[in-house]
Amino acid sequence: MIATTPQPPYYAVIFTSTKTTTDEGYNEMADKMIALAAKQEGFLGVEAARNEIGITVSYWKDVASIKKWKEVSEHKIAQEKGKTTWYKSFKTRIAKVERDYEFHKTN
Amino acid sequence: MIATTPQPPYYAVIFTSTKTTTDEGYNEMADKMIALAAKQEGFLGVEAARNEIGITVSYWKDVASIKKWKEVSEHKIAQEKGKTTWYKSFKTRIAKVERDYEFHKTN
Repeated sequence: MIATTPQPPYYAVIFTSTKTTTDEGYNEMADKMIALAAKQEGFLGVEAARNEIGITVSYWKDVASIKKWKEVSEHKIAQEKGKTTWYKSFKTRIAKVERDYEFHKTN
Repeated sequence: MIATTPQPPYYAVIFTSTKTTTDEGYNEMADKMIALAAKQEGFLGVEAARNEIGITVSYWKDVASIKKWKEVSEHKIAQEKGKTTWYKSFKTRIAKVERDYEFHKTN
């Protein structure tokens, strides 16, 4: 689903990754982290897709809520497991959404 | 591939979409537009993945280069075809990347 977000400005965390061949427990953890993120203060929405690379974009009210989410203990455990087991490489980009527009087919 | 981008600040265009059932010509056009974008001034890189939704993130030097790319005539034709044929809905977000960090497995 395309995330429903408020009027800009708000923040996006663009998390791009490539995985190792070890999938064990990954999908469960990914689902769990999305559910947990959704409970955090300042969370606005999330979008994810994966082929050769995975892209997860989560949307947040401000930088403070992103920093707090990064430090949530269950999330820290998941981050560590990501590095040791699931991810071959990743890049995280913190970006301020300045403008957005959308299209919905009506016919 | 995870895009190799310079030190922030730079810009990201987060394009999230859902498709109609009409795939005709879509992949060819998507490849063509990525190749054309890569030739534009200010283009820094692109990442894409699609499952239920598609996420394409392109990276740019500044807002001016994003605006110029939006007006490139072949790109405008593709945008129009996207609305009439391929996309059920989409959302485009223009965001300023303020900070990034990355991880590469070494063992």
